[in-house]
Amino acid sequence: MNIWRGIAIGLSAMALFLTLYAATHLSVPLCMHDMRSGTARDQGDGRIDPGQLFLRIPSTDRLREHLQYYTSGTHVAGINRTQAVHTRDYFEAQGIEAKIVEYYPWLNYPVDQRVALFNESTHAVEFEAGLKEDAIAGDSASEDPNNLPAFLGLSASGNVTGQLVYANYGTLDDFRALKAAGVSIKDKVVLVRYGGILRGLKVHGAERGGARGVLIYSDPADDGYCIGKVYPSGPWRPESSFQRGSVSLIQVYPGDPLTPGHPATKDAPRLDPKDAKSLNHIPSLPLSYRDAEPLLRALVGHGKNASEISESWVGGLTSRGVEYWTGPSALSVNLLNHVEFKTTPIQNVIGRITGSEEPGRAIIIGNHRDAWCAGASDPSSGSAVLLELARAFGELMKLGWRPRRTIILASWDAEEYSLVGSTEWVEDNIDWIRADVVAYVNVDAAVMGSEFGASASPILKDLLFAATKKVAFPGSNETIYDAWLRQSQGDLVSDRADLDNEDDNGSFPDPNRAEHHTPPVRPLGAGSDYTPFMSHAGVSSLNLGFGGGLGTYHSNYDSFKQMTTFVDPNFELHQAMTRVCGLVVIHLADDAVLKLSPISYAKSLAGYIRELERQVAGYTAASLNGTAMKRLHRLRAAQRQFLTNAHLVEQSKHRLRTVYGEDCQMAGRRRRMNCRKLRKSINDRVSRLERHFIDPEGIPGREWYKHALVGPGRWLGYDAQVFPAIAEAAEDHKWKMLRQYEKRIAEIIYEAAWFLREV
Amino acid sequence: MNIWRGIAIGLSAMALFLTLYAATHLSVPLCMHDMRSGTARDQGDGRIDPGQLFLRIPSTDRLREHLQYYTSGTHVAGINRTQAVHTRDYFEAQGIEAKIVEYYPWLNYPVDQRVALFNESTHAVEFEAGLKEDAIAGDSASEDPNNLPAFLGLSASGNVTGQLVYANYGTLDDFRALKAAGVSIKDKVVLVRYGGILRGLKVHGAERGGARGVLIYSDPADDGYCIGKVYPSGPWRPESSFQRGSVSLIQVYPGDPLTPGHPATKDAPRLDPKDAKSLNHIPSLPLSYRDAEPLLRALVGHGKNASEISESWVGGLTSRGVEYWTGPSALSVNLLNHVEFKTTPIQNVIGRITGSEEPGRAIIIGNHRDAWCAGASDPSSGSAVLLELARAFGELMKLGWRPRRTIILASWDAEEYSLVGSTEWVEDNIDWIRADVVAYVNVDAAVMGSEFGASASPILKDLLFAATKKVAFPGSNETIYDAWLRQSQGDLVSDRADLDNEDDNGSFPDPNRAEHHTPPVRPLGAGSDYTPFMSHAGVSSLNLGFGGGLGTYHSNYDSFKQMTTFVDPNFELHQAMTRVCGLVVIHLADDAVLKLSPISYAKSLAGYIRELERQVAGYTAASLNGTAMKRLHRLRAAQRQFLTNAHLVEQSKHRLRTVYGEDCQMAGRRRRMNCRKLRKSINDRVSRLERHFIDPEGIPGREWYKHALVGPGRWLGYDAQVFPAIAEAAEDHKWKMLRQYEKRIAEIIYEAAWFLREV
Repeated sequence: MNIWRGIAIGLSAMALFLTLYAATHLSVPLCMHDMRSGTARDQGDGRIDPGQLFLRIPSTDRLREHLQYYTSGTHVAGINRTQAVHTRDYFEAQGIEAKIVEYYPWLNYPVDQRVALFNESTHAVEFEAGLKEDAIAGDSASEDPNNLPAFLGLSASGNVTGQLVYANYGTLDDFRALKAAGVSIKDKVVLVRYGGILRGLKVHGAERGGARGVLIYSDPADDGYCIGKVYPSGPWRPESSFQRGSVSLIQVYPGDPLTPGHPATKDAPRLDPKDAKSLNHIPSLPLSYRDAEPLLRALVGHGKNASEISESWVGGLTSRGVEYWTGPSALSVNLLNHVEFKTTPIQNVIGRITGSEEPGRAIIIGNHRDAWCAGASDPSSGSAVLLELARAFGELMKLGWRPRRTIILASWDAEEYSLVGSTEWVEDNIDWIRADVVAYVNVDAAVMGSEFGASASPILKDLLFAATKKVAFPGSNETIYDAWLRQSQGDLVSDRADLDNEDDNGSFPDPNRAEHHTPPVRPLGAGSDYTPFMSHAGVSSLNLGFGGGLGTYHSNYDSFKQMTTFVDPNFELHQAMTRVCGLVVIHLADDAVLKLSPISYAKSLAGYIRELERQVAGYTAASLNGTAMKRLHRLRAAQRQFLTNAHLVEQSKHRLRTVYGEDCQMAGRRRRMNCRKLRKSINDRVSRLERHFIDPEGIPGREWYKHALVGPGRWLGYDAQVFPAIAEAAEDHKWKMLRQYEKRIAEIIYEAAWFLREV
Repeated sequence: MNIWRGIAIGLSAMALFLTLYAATHLSVPLCMHDMRSGTARDQGDGRIDPGQLFLRIPSTDRLREHLQYYTSGTHVAGINRTQAVHTRDYFEAQGIEAKIVEYYPWLNYPVDQRVALFNESTHAVEFEAGLKEDAIAGDSASEDPNNLPAFLGLSASGNVTGQLVYANYGTLDDFRALKAAGVSIKDKVVLVRYGGILRGLKVHGAERGGARGVLIYSDPADDGYCIGKVYPSGPWRPESSFQRGSVSLIQVYPGDPLTPGHPATKDAPRLDPKDAKSLNHIPSLPLSYRDAEPLLRALVGHGKNASEISESWVGGLTSRGVEYWTGPSALSVNLLNHVEFKTTPIQNVIGRITGSEEPGRAIIIGNHRDAWCAGASDPSSGSAVLLELARAFGELMKLGWRPRRTIILASWDAEEYSLVGSTEWVEDNIDWIRADVVAYVNVDAAVMGSEFGASASPILKDLLFAATKKVAFPGSNETIYDAWLRQSQGDLVSDRADLDNEDDNGSFPDPNRAEHHTPPVRPLGAGSDYTPFMSHAGVSSLNLGFGGGLGTYHSNYDSFKQMTTFVDPNFELHQAMTRVCGLVVIHLADDAVLKLSPISYAKSLAGYIRELERQVAGYTAASLNGTAMKRLHRLRAAQRQFLTNAHLVEQSKHRLRTVYGEDCQMAGRRRRMNCRKLRKSINDRVSRLERHFIDPEGIPGREWYKHALVGPGRWLGYDAQVFPAIAEAAEDHKWKMLRQYEKRIAEIIYEAAWFLREV
């Protein structure tokens, strides 16, 4: 009895103690109220908001200076070290540690070119292509002696002759249509026009069909006088202008052709060039429409009238009386492309602001620095933005700011050849990138017009919408968001999570249904430096820019003069882009809880699934075999689970905000520890979600591309294909493989969903 | 046995619990390290520093606009409501709540004036004073029809006639010297020159001696052509210019003459004007040296040649062949001053930014808005600074900032008459001011030259030095601090705490001794709106401005034109003053631990005691009675205790910084509570220290003045007298009273020391 009484006494003493302890530690409302004195807490913590302050810093004058610097001479990949040094020095001058990181890819440079139309029998030359862009008075960039001649990066050397055939845009469908029309491209020189798909795929398609060489010309219907006034009277492509560019097969793998999957360091093992699957083997050259016109005229009356194949084969030279015919021509074309391949040092510049609270998490913003010519819009408008961001971050740091997380600013080299600088760097740092990087923001050609556009992992949409709502569209009362929404009325997206409504057209909503519309944020394909981050490392990425306003892409006329005359005279678009990018980066780097949204991902996933189903249905209908497949049930089920668990994350965020406060500054060590644990867990989930969509096996046939949900289309190149493995199985009519991949990717989505649940 | 075993079990359970509790709550080093992740903590907390950001905001263009506004017309006390409304509206537009607060003091306005020299017998007028400042082409302020005529605020009406006597500066010593020279001022009209002491004391001295009226003229030696070029060729006083100003006896009490010690609200009980001790009773007028010259000439040969009394009696008109004689003149002077007294509504504007963490502690910054004429330097340069501070705080608030403590911006009315707006407001709010106000910063004439000067409670010195070290002196590589130090080489102060070294000259150090010199920060007397705060409420105060650069004070020529031509053409001095004031206010409002220094107070106190001892020794030597008194031992002992306890406060600050961190953000609720308690205790000590120097009984004969350590000199008016009660007892040879006050004030110092000890 007594022992029990004793225990009772002891325990009562403890109970009393515990009660007192509880009273002092768990009177949460009172303590929290005491800690958060007054009403100011409701309005924010009284500290200066770095995002608000940041918005005032980007200067149109400085942006002009930056652009003037970068466009002051040519800066081709591997031949722009001075600009790399300038960029590094500029970062350092802002208080940002920076260094130059070199790689050694296999690149090529032009030696000689010729395109001529001649009589095979008499050898009489009917036409010799000028292959030269006219000098324009008042635009020194057009007369720069260092301007590259007609040249396509990573094109094969060759001196070939053959009859000419016109193949429209040179897509897979175009070559099929040509074949169906009874026109063979074997041993021919194929003339295609720019547009639709990656350059390299046009060459590849021609090569597959046995052609000897390819000429890619710019038709005035696509970016010339059919669109608007041509340079120097306007921003569209004049008749002597040709579009340089890479013909590597990015959609197979980007980066150095000889070191797929590993970095092109000095001593890295290299493929033999003939084994490099991203290279084409037949020579190719770009042409202006001045030089293409005589070639097209030489086709008239030969083969089929292109309009019989389809009206979409007819270009804009009809206004000059040119008819489009397939050929083959009677005359022959000599295509000489003499290039020199060599291992070339290239320079990335990497700047770093180490985070003050979570230095182990990093946000990267990148732009490529190399250009085919002066590159005012592509890429130097983005280079100017990157420099101005560096200056703005420097200004904030002078005022005491340090971002919570690490910010890395990257100036890539050799993007134009094949996303080389970024790809080699990602391959070189794949482990810590997978471990540490929260997101990658890409600003390639920041200003090529005035229409805002973006593609991204859906998890970044909300942040992008919020940022664009805080920046004014130049010269108006609208925000960038408003203008973006208004300008994209034609392709509004309603991100609905529910897959089960058959009324809608998938992503294209029933206008009678009152829904919340947001501007379109396309899935990421390939085409700029986000590719290795998103598709290889599984880092959530965002690509953005103002476009739609010029046609002189990759030519001598993409100059400072053109930019300041027709595109952005006051540099307010540059300034707006700097503001949007900076806000996105500051939020990613500074918000206590990352504003990445798995629910948005889940909703977009529904859209991707519907898009896939539509495509698959198209292939199935076209197939003589296979039952009509309307729905991909496994994927739908996986998406539902994903959405459910995405809601769990959102609830956790809500709980964190309301119970604790995102800053985790409250009474009670245990409560604070719990708050931080919860916050870390949320941040881990949302920043590493994208990793879970990486399939280590990659897309069949293109194993470098590992993202299961999106990737560059096999036959598109730039544009994204959703669920590439499944879509390509359907396209190839491989139904068993389709089912296997459907199952596999559904499992991937389930695993991602379970990962979210662990919050 | 069992019960004990039971208790043992129960208590062991509790001990175990306690051990676990201790382990989780008291493992301070580990937790603190976890909480403060990374090295950034050592460099600051990664937040934007509002002080650093603030420095970039004040704009010379905006300051110019503000000054242009305020000087666009006259704005005399009680006749400037429009400017009050503008000021209130401007504050509101910056997001600062503001209101107009009215009081109803007894003021007067000019009706008629005359000064004439005439022959009493023949009534022939020999000279009629113009009493008008010349219009200057190109300076519209000089021709403003609203400009006040020759007038002295609160002067008595009167129409008197008498012989003229010249009494140098009209100090007590000057009147004594005149008497000693056998010249009586009884029934005379006394001519004195500006300088040395308060205007009102000159009139008072003359009145005490039986004079009928007083003329106060501006001698060219004091602020006219003997100093430099006169307006419009330079910034010094031209011959037609006269200095308006108040002749109330501020050193008796400031504010509304009829309501000493309580606010002049509509229904407040009022004295009969004849009982108002701050009013003089004989008429007085200001004169230019153009008008004074004939009067001085009329004295030549009469009475004594002033240079026989002292060379210091001879002014600058000697360059025009004028000799200075005492008179009395043969001719008579008619002085007519017709003024109208009335109860006049005046408008203070009070703006308020409520603090986010400690709204119950307030920092006040004030400037007076009323001027005698256009008032470009006095006070509108300060009004411009106040508005620009409001704008800068508004800008910071737009970026999310809220100061920790409340900031009040005050635009006072009727300062020129007798510090009326501020005095009435302090009397009206004395209780919460004593409870809540941390410090008062006064910026009257912010820019009257380019020499920085300040007077303050010593507790504010360190903060002022730190702020001036962060602001550049315009057009140089120096800081304000450097320039201030350099410009004041003649009166460097070495603030040594040890009183026992007889080598030094008190405040004037032995140049052979290597010591730390700082610029002089004089003790506060009376003369601007800090007076009610420091001397009546016991709030630590600071008065600052750039001076020494113009001589047209209180005249039509203190205009926008003069300011922009000779004093601050680029508004960079205005900008520098805005920066210094703003930094001081931001630190007072935002630092977690107030940077007020009791040790600096203790050191200055040593200096005050030495100064008092010197003065007392002077009186004792002059006295036929009394032993030579070298040291005031009680005061010295009290100062030593005060210094010791000031060190305790400094140690507590040090402990707070190193053990906890000023932000009190660490693990452990108990530790955090302790940290906050310590911090609050430190802040309470330093912000309320000044209160302990208030003696409720006040200075004998001037009981409104209650600060025991400093106050306006009884016969000086503006300048400070240290230990006024003691010094005046010595001056009056009241040795017993001197000992009583020494004892009393020593006790006050001991109590202040004990108060510090309570930290």
